[in-house]
Amino acid sequence: MNFRMIFKSIGTVICVEAACMIPSLIVALIYNEGDAPAFIVSILAAGITGFVLMCIKSKTSLIYTRDGFAIAALGWLLITAFGALPFILSGAIPSSVDAFFESASGFSTTGASILKDVEAAPKGILFWRSFTHWIGGMGVLILMIALIPSVKPSTLHILKAESPGPSPGKFVPKIGQSTKILYLIYAALTAIQVIILAIGGMPLYDNLVHTFGTAGTGGFSSRNASVGAYGSLYMEIVIAVFMFLFGVNFSLYYMALKGDIKSSLWDEELRFYFTTVVAAIVLITLNIKGTIFPSIGESLRHSSFTVSSIITTTGYTNTDFNLWPWFSKCIIYLLMFMGASAGSTGGGIKCIRILLLFKIAKREIKKITHPRMVQTVKLNGRVVDEAILSGILTFFFLFIAIFALSVLIVSFEGQDFVTTTSAVISCLSNIGPGLGTVGPAGNYSGFTDFSKIILSLDMITGRLEIFPILLLFLPSFWKRSTI
Amino acid sequence: MNFRMIFKSIGTVICVEAACMIPSLIVALIYNEGDAPAFIVSILAAGITGFVLMCIKSKTSLIYTRDGFAIAALGWLLITAFGALPFILSGAIPSSVDAFFESASGFSTTGASILKDVEAAPKGILFWRSFTHWIGGMGVLILMIALIPSVKPSTLHILKAESPGPSPGKFVPKIGQSTKILYLIYAALTAIQVIILAIGGMPLYDNLVHTFGTAGTGGFSSRNASVGAYGSLYMEIVIAVFMFLFGVNFSLYYMALKGDIKSSLWDEELRFYFTTVVAAIVLITLNIKGTIFPSIGESLRHSSFTVSSIITTTGYTNTDFNLWPWFSKCIIYLLMFMGASAGSTGGGIKCIRILLLFKIAKREIKKITHPRMVQTVKLNGRVVDEAILSGILTFFFLFIAIFALSVLIVSFEGQDFVTTTSAVISCLSNIGPGLGTVGPAGNYSGFTDFSKIILSLDMITGRLEIFPILLLFLPSFWKRSTI
Repeated sequence: MNFRMIFKSIGTVICVEAACMIPSLIVALIYNEGDAPAFIVSILAAGITGFVLMCIKSKTSLIYTRDGFAIAALGWLLITAFGALPFILSGAIPSSVDAFFESASGFSTTGASILKDVEAAPKGILFWRSFTHWIGGMGVLILMIALIPSVKPSTLHILKAESPGPSPGKFVPKIGQSTKILYLIYAALTAIQVIILAIGGMPLYDNLVHTFGTAGTGGFSSRNASVGAYGSLYMEIVIAVFMFLFGVNFSLYYMALKGDIKSSLWDEELRFYFTTVVAAIVLITLNIKGTIFPSIGESLRHSSFTVSSIITTTGYTNTDFNLWPWFSKCIIYLLMFMGASAGSTGGGIKCIRILLLFKIAKREIKKITHPRMVQTVKLNGRVVDEAILSGILTFFFLFIAIFALSVLIVSFEGQDFVTTTSAVISCLSNIGPGLGTVGPAGNYSGFTDFSKIILSLDMITGRLEIFPILLLFLPSFWKRSTI
Repeated sequence: MNFRMIFKSIGTVICVEAACMIPSLIVALIYNEGDAPAFIVSILAAGITGFVLMCIKSKTSLIYTRDGFAIAALGWLLITAFGALPFILSGAIPSSVDAFFESASGFSTTGASILKDVEAAPKGILFWRSFTHWIGGMGVLILMIALIPSVKPSTLHILKAESPGPSPGKFVPKIGQSTKILYLIYAALTAIQVIILAIGGMPLYDNLVHTFGTAGTGGFSSRNASVGAYGSLYMEIVIAVFMFLFGVNFSLYYMALKGDIKSSLWDEELRFYFTTVVAAIVLITLNIKGTIFPSIGESLRHSSFTVSSIITTTGYTNTDFNLWPWFSKCIIYLLMFMGASAGSTGGGIKCIRILLLFKIAKREIKKITHPRMVQTVKLNGRVVDEAILSGILTFFFLFIAIFALSVLIVSFEGQDFVTTTSAVISCLSNIGPGLGTVGPAGNYSGFTDFSKIILSLDMITGRLEIFPILLLFLPSFWKRSTI
């Protein structure tokens, strides 16, 4: 373990975080609602801490895989803590547990809130909340690698620990280059959404808040009724489409930009993701038509926005789907586990894993009929390595196991089954709203502090795809001697 | 595919089933409640059909793995259908869907019932219902192999398809011998329970019904209030202990009988099973003491009976655990997925798989810190084959996937979430009672015929551990040419 290098890297990340608070400070100064001092103190606290950590001298700058995982795990816990400072100092969220929850929810792009009345909070604070979505979506560590020029090849291990999906790659030889391209695509898509929403007449502040929430697939809104508050079909369509787009693997955009549009459109995960979205929209529309909404148009409007929001793990709502029939809620519930594409800003198990799990299962069944035939699992025509397949199978088990364990712990406070289980999966998959008390019309303020901490850890565990956080619980991980 | 041999084997199984109806006919004749003719007709129908199928001539008696799976899958569907005949013909269960459900519930050792008033049914019918538990517990096909002397080594494939657990083995060289030993241990344990319950004063009829239900880890009772109806601490303790014993891998009993008591007691799965039971009892006792039962004694009595009943997937109840706090219900819910030991009569995922899944997960996490170290997974000191591990991982995914798909289908009829999900897992893991409407005080009569068919298939799928039934849906499975 290279602890010096780990804390040095984390120092850099915290400095980047301090810099990221500046736009929120500007917003706070513009609206002048008393939250500016909170930002100034937070920026100083994060900046100084980060700078001190950065000054640590390390004999070697080599980073092994487990160092990368440690940087991701400890780094995320620390940026969440520093990200909570503005909430506490401004008085918007006085309880430190609540503030940590809200910060974890922001960075992990969950969007679950303990605020009962969002509209009462200062504008700078709400801006910060949504901006953490934008940073957390693509990744704080990736941002660091993209910003700092002196990146070594070994930083791939950091990227690995933070990137969603079973096998994150670099699509150009230099890793610093790859992360810059990712952030450029991300920024470009974000800018396009801002422009399109502006054309529809959304005020700039609301526009930025909702675009950050969409881009990071987060879901924090500046309105109590979320996107539904605007009652605008135009805005709902724009946001639904962009939620879907931010749920696509970003390397496909790069591929398309390089001219290979056919390959990117024909990508197996994309087709699986698209097919699932269409199937879910059709089934829910048929189910809620007549029972909840009289017309097919209204049913389609609400089902498509909800499906796009849930599968991408964003969590914006334009209606209270908690009131829908159980069949529709079951589809939503299952989509919560699935999530969006690997290499997107979305959470959950990810489409590519579900797709490969089905392929593995099919192979296992075929083995019974053809025991002597060696069978491979292919994706986009290429054979997938057995180590990756076994990693995916294990990931699935761990995801379900952590879900089950969290449900058991949170159930201790006695909330009903639907609320408990959907709150846990909503946090673990980084969605935001659940069903029951934590549905679109509710919030997470009813949980005890203990449950809020568990749910916060679920959010970070889900965002980092389990392994970095689990590694912290492995005793041998902390031994210095072994490599 | 050797279709001739498949149907010939199934014919034998149906003949065995016809013979198994004779004790119920005798009970019907003794109590003379009008159900005897139903048994006579059923015996004739099954006997003649079985005999006709047995007469099929086959050029080769070779049975490949997939033939074994086909015999298990089709055989179980057919014996379930024939097993439903007495229910329909006696008028006890007029609807054929209900009768199929009750028969599937019996043979699969689930114990879920659509009967609203069990005590109103004729005694012969209730005896048959419980006797199907006893046959289904150890396996109809295993019974066939044990009974018919001319067994070939290739029948191992049939055994594989029906036996619970990741790697069923034969512990003596001859497979016919192995199955005979299994049935002898099974019969001996059954006899001991009958004697001990008789000492406690349980009438013979009730005694047999409840012993069959315990031995097969089924759970059908002749009383509406299940075992709780007797209000006898003695009987509850006896049944709780025997439920636990029938949830132990039977090969451990054989090992102990051969003198190797230490190895059998030190078996890793047994320790895991035992530890889980103790942990669950302690947690539930602490949770229900004070809230549900005033004394620690009463809490312990009900928690231990319930835990033993649920983890072994039996389903007998001595109280309505539906009224317990959510934490306790969550533990019960999780135990429903886990189930008992491999090679026992219990259902569910099985302790050995859960234990190995955790070991696999630990190895995967360790791989991050020691990427170049080759690590094996061990059980009882021996390295477990990677093919078995990958099979277990896939099994876990398929189990959860079938659970999710069934929940989605059953949710269509609009029952609440707790009822729907617990009904599905209760059927898939062969338990019986669930939570909500299908809790200990309820039954399955409220579901539509469509849902009842899905739940019946879940029971058989769960009993045969998924693969044989899934194989029926694979198109290539039905192609005659390939081997």
